[in-house]
Amino acid sequence: MKLITAIVNDHDGQMVLEALNKEGFAVTKLATTGSFLKVGNMTLIIGTEDDLVQKAIDTIKSQCRRRKQVVITPAYLETAGGYATRPTEVDVGGATVFVQDIERFERI
Amino acid sequence: MKLITAIVNDHDGQMVLEALNKEGFAVTKLATTGSFLKVGNMTLIIGTEDDLVQKAIDTIKSQCRRRKQVVITPAYLETAGGYATRPTEVDVGGATVFVQDIERFERI
Amino acid sequence: MKLITAIVNDHDGQMVLEALNKEGFAVTKLATTGSFLKVGNMTLIIGTEDDLVQKAIDTIKSQCRRRKQVVITPAYLETAGGYATRPTEVDVGGATVFVQDIERFERI
Ligand code: NI
Ligand code: NI
Ligand code: NI
Repeated sequence: MKLITAIVNDHDGQMVLEALNKEGFAVTKLATTGSFLKVGNMTLIIGTEDDLVQKAIDTIKSQCRRRKQVVITPAYLETAGGYATRPTEVDVGGATVFVQDIERFERI
Repeated sequence: MKLITAIVNDHDGQMVLEALNKEGFAVTKLATTGSFLKVGNMTLIIGTEDDLVQKAIDTIKSQCRRRKQVVITPAYLETAGGYATRPTEVDVGGATVFVQDIERFERI
Repeated sequence: MKLITAIVNDHDGQMVLEALNKEGFAVTKLATTGSFLKVGNMTLIIGTEDDLVQKAIDTIKSQCRRRKQVVITPAYLETAGGYATRPTEVDVGGATVFVQDIERFERI
């Protein structure tokens, strides 16, 4: 058995969780308020068979690929002496995933 | 040293925690809102000596064995054209426990 | 890669987190309401290279060494038939830290 810990941002988290459930993985959500990617994160833990680890990671990847997103930010315009808004690309999404060994696993 | 992670439902959690404390185990409760058993869960982590792992698991087992519980659910009665209540057995309790190795342990 | 889990009290936690960030460690804070040291705790997890584990632990130590603190507690005075306050030394701070192996680490 392996334990997969996935730290994903709040925005993607719910979809990651549902995608994992749909593939048959039991997921536990730890409430997190992490500073990890400078946004709200959630930490998901998944206990699974060794040969399903890749499938779980692929499922996580499918829902939270790092991507560009256009946000509207204020920009100072010297010529106009004031502020205007302009579209800016920022990175969103992504995840940190690590896999650890479980020596003993019991369902009581 | 070993790390025991126990995912138990909210109902049993407080009693599991107290039973573990009474046996001398230091327990940390991680706030969880897991979807694991489709009810509210809490995740407990316990760092302990190798030869106390079985005692900790037995203590957890003693407080959250999977069991039948009778709940009152509404049932549609065709003959009466309306709803009545009837007792139904549901599964409650249970826990998921896994044990992992700790390579280094320090109390600062 | 190693996973460091640090259980520190709420008072020291924010400073530990900032000190770790300043040293370049990515830290995820798990919300905890632990009974571990009989006060509110927070659990921090840090994934790091093997050769940076000692530096991370030293950073944690620097911010939450166990120490004496004087608190004012009420004391019953038999001679006066009532309560007075008196300064009492209590232990505060401290942390529990454990290090575990990470078999696979991915940043998506
Ligand atoms: Ni989205
Ligand atoms: Ni009960
Ligand atoms: Ni302080």
